[in-house]
Amino acid sequence: MQFQLTDELIEQVERLVENQNDKELQKLLKEFHYADIAEVLDELNLEDAVYVIKLLDSETTSDVLMELDEDNREKVLKNLSAKEIAEEIEELDTDDAADIISELPEERQQEVISKIEDEEHKAEITELLAYDEDTAGGLMAKELVKVYETWTVAGCLRRIRGQAKEVTRVHSIYVVDKQDKLIGRLSLKDLIVAKNEKKIADIYISNVDYVEVNEDVEDVAKVMAKYDLEAIPVVDENQTLLGRITIDDIVDVLKEEADKDYQLAAGITQDVEADDSILELTRARLPWLVLGLVGGVGAFLIMEGFQESFKEKAILFFFTPLIAAMAGNVGVQSSAIIVQGLANDDLRGSINSRLIKEMLLAALNGVILAIFLFLFVWFYKGELDKALAISISLIVVIIVAGLIGTFVPLFLNKRGVDPAIATGPFITTSNDILGILLYFWIAELIINIYN
Amino acid sequence: MQFQLTDELIEQVERLVENQNDKELQKLLKEFHYADIAEVLDELNLEDAVYVIKLLDSETTSDVLMELDEDNREKVLKNLSAKEIAEEIEELDTDDAADIISELPEERQQEVISKIEDEEHKAEITELLAYDEDTAGGLMAKELVKVYETWTVAGCLRRIRGQAKEVTRVHSIYVVDKQDKLIGRLSLKDLIVAKNEKKIADIYISNVDYVEVNEDVEDVAKVMAKYDLEAIPVVDENQTLLGRITIDDIVDVLKEEADKDYQLAAGITQDVEADDSILELTRARLPWLVLGLVGGVGAFLIMEGFQESFKEKAILFFFTPLIAAMAGNVGVQSSAIIVQGLANDDLRGSINSRLIKEMLLAALNGVILAIFLFLFVWFYKGELDKALAISISLIVVIIVAGLIGTFVPLFLNKRGVDPAIATGPFITTSNDILGILLYFWIAELIINIYN
Repeated sequence: MQFQLTDELIEQVERLVENQNDKELQKLLKEFHYADIAEVLDELNLEDAVYVIKLLDSETTSDVLMELDEDNREKVLKNLSAKEIAEEIEELDTDDAADIISELPEERQQEVISKIEDEEHKAEITELLAYDEDTAGGLMAKELVKVYETWTVAGCLRRIRGQAKEVTRVHSIYVVDKQDKLIGRLSLKDLIVAKNEKKIADIYISNVDYVEVNEDVEDVAKVMAKYDLEAIPVVDENQTLLGRITIDDIVDVLKEEADKDYQLAAGITQDVEADDSILELTRARLPWLVLGLVGGVGAFLIMEGFQESFKEKAILFFFTPLIAAMAGNVGVQSSAIIVQGLANDDLRGSINSRLIKEMLLAALNGVILAIFLFLFVWFYKGELDKALAISISLIVVIIVAGLIGTFVPLFLNKRGVDPAIATGPFITTSNDILGILLYFWIAELIINIYN
Repeated sequence: MQFQLTDELIEQVERLVENQNDKELQKLLKEFHYADIAEVLDELNLEDAVYVIKLLDSETTSDVLMELDEDNREKVLKNLSAKEIAEEIEELDTDDAADIISELPEERQQEVISKIEDEEHKAEITELLAYDEDTAGGLMAKELVKVYETWTVAGCLRRIRGQAKEVTRVHSIYVVDKQDKLIGRLSLKDLIVAKNEKKIADIYISNVDYVEVNEDVEDVAKVMAKYDLEAIPVVDENQTLLGRITIDDIVDVLKEEADKDYQLAAGITQDVEADDSILELTRARLPWLVLGLVGGVGAFLIMEGFQESFKEKAILFFFTPLIAAMAGNVGVQSSAIIVQGLANDDLRGSINSRLIKEMLLAALNGVILAIFLFLFVWFYKGELDKALAISISLIVVIIVAGLIGTFVPLFLNKRGVDPAIATGPFITTSNDILGILLYFWIAELIINIYN
């Protein structure tokens, strides 16, 4: 049953487009879900994709458009007139409609909006466009099923049959008072089970979760995940019901957040995919690499500064990659745990207690690793002073790296900066330099004391 | 409205427990959602937590237990008798019940199961326990609303009122034939809108998504996210309807997967949280650090091997941290993009075309970075031969690092190994060593040619 995107299928579609065999093409695509058609179109060249899109019925087209890769959608929309886009928009839910319009160039947005015929739809989309895309308002849809507390169950069912036509899936029925303030909820099941003559006021559940329209989408995602909600109503500061957010949009938010954090940790600054162009990929990667280069030059300058005192101790220089790698790895481990703890809200207690814990943890790891290193240097080179100097500095470097890895994301978070930026190259590079500096200082100190 | 976990609240609960003020405590906790109570309990010591749990009514207790942190749940369950656990299990949906039982030690599992009084519940839980936890079977619940195609709408509504009591949320109504084979679906809305005397066979939608019971949970998540599903039925190889999976469980799967991949990329091998014990955290971190140590020793041996030929060229050694850092960063960037592409199924085309693209990308980045480095060394030291040697080797090192970062996750994936393991320390360490080796080889070659 499951759809498989194969090269054969794509070739088949390409052949049908080439032969302009519209009938066969329509027959073939009718079998597929719109999300699958979008996957096929993402693989076609622009001309073929536009050909196929113009062939689909209007409802399918709009759904397919929503599912296309953002870059491809932009290109396809450029090939459609404002009138054609407005027609697709009419078929979409308000949240999807607003998303598509917001991706258009400024001047085209107005043109498309003016061509939307349904005045209510137009007004709702315009309202949604005013919200920041990272807030509850930017994610919500205006489509929902709303009942007044004064209605009866029978009246309710009758009206819901009307309202529900617009709403693809009825999650909860929201109960409002005369001023449209959200006061509770009902499930369709509750309504079916209740007697026809009952008043909504008698049967609704007043305990209803909601979010404010300006709340951050990540917080909305946390609330919905924590309470296992499938939809959540959105209200303004007066508790007036404005819209609702459904879990499928939250699933997308969670995936995007996870992808973004993963890329940041790997030193990729913009949202890119493996199939983006080389230029886009370079732009996303180069900034952190330049930072790495600057860090490397810093390490060079430090080592050059120490070269006189180590004329006779070249061996110390041969361990710098080891020191830098350990400092980087420990820093990334510490910061990743903190970044994740912050994202999941499971960090409690003061910064100081975190730092103490991290110090103990790093010290434990550091001592274990230093023992290995000490034994290696001692047996391999037979120089006790250097073995001691190298392994003791390794412990200090690891402890400092762990502290920096812990402190930086906590500090950024306090300052309102996304701590995810702190993992990856940023921590690695700063720990590399600091680690090497500490290493040479301490090693010099120990060797001087020893001799 | 939103719950805030404050130190004051925790202290208040602790005080009430200490004074054994059960009435106040019950009154306070009654206000909270079970997920919030679980958050409070996660902060209490075990004794207090068990005290509070025994005070809650049985339905709340079972929900709270499900939401507790896994480590805390294990401890709390140790303090409950098999009979007490069985009573909580009776209140839970089959999927949650099976999850809790599967966490118990082997010998306790049988004891708890034998104490479950509801025979049907017991049989269903036993069935679920047989499935692998990473498959659709391990995630599904037996609770669902099922109707036969031969029923009428009126009969259906009557029976659904019965079945739906067990089902917290009715997503879809699944339509089966006489042999219990899944043949379609219906929404509650469709049912309400239809005439009472219609047959289900006349109104059901035969186009229904489903997954097989042995399918991997990650694939289930992909299907549900792609088609925006809120629930999906699970069938066996004969298409017999076995259970259903709801989106809230998928949200948890997505979060766990994202957390795991993030930790792997940061060099943390087990699922740990910032609040785990130092020993657990050490166990999760040490393996990759030891790998880093071995890599560092490898780098040491390489540099030692080259020391004779570079007696007079200490400057080359001072750039090894830079070379190692660049090799590591480029490798992590490449592998992260590939790992993500594999996870999201957006990688198409052959391995060769990927490698060629990555080579071009790395070459572009490498040339830009090498120009910076060349200018620095040339102006700062005035030694053209070394400036050339260092910057040309940097380009080669970056290209090779990019290729390894691309190839390794693709190779692991082909072999059926989770490619996420390839980002982070694994790539960093292998690229460090190889990068340094290449660097010295090429630098030596160039300096020899030049002079």
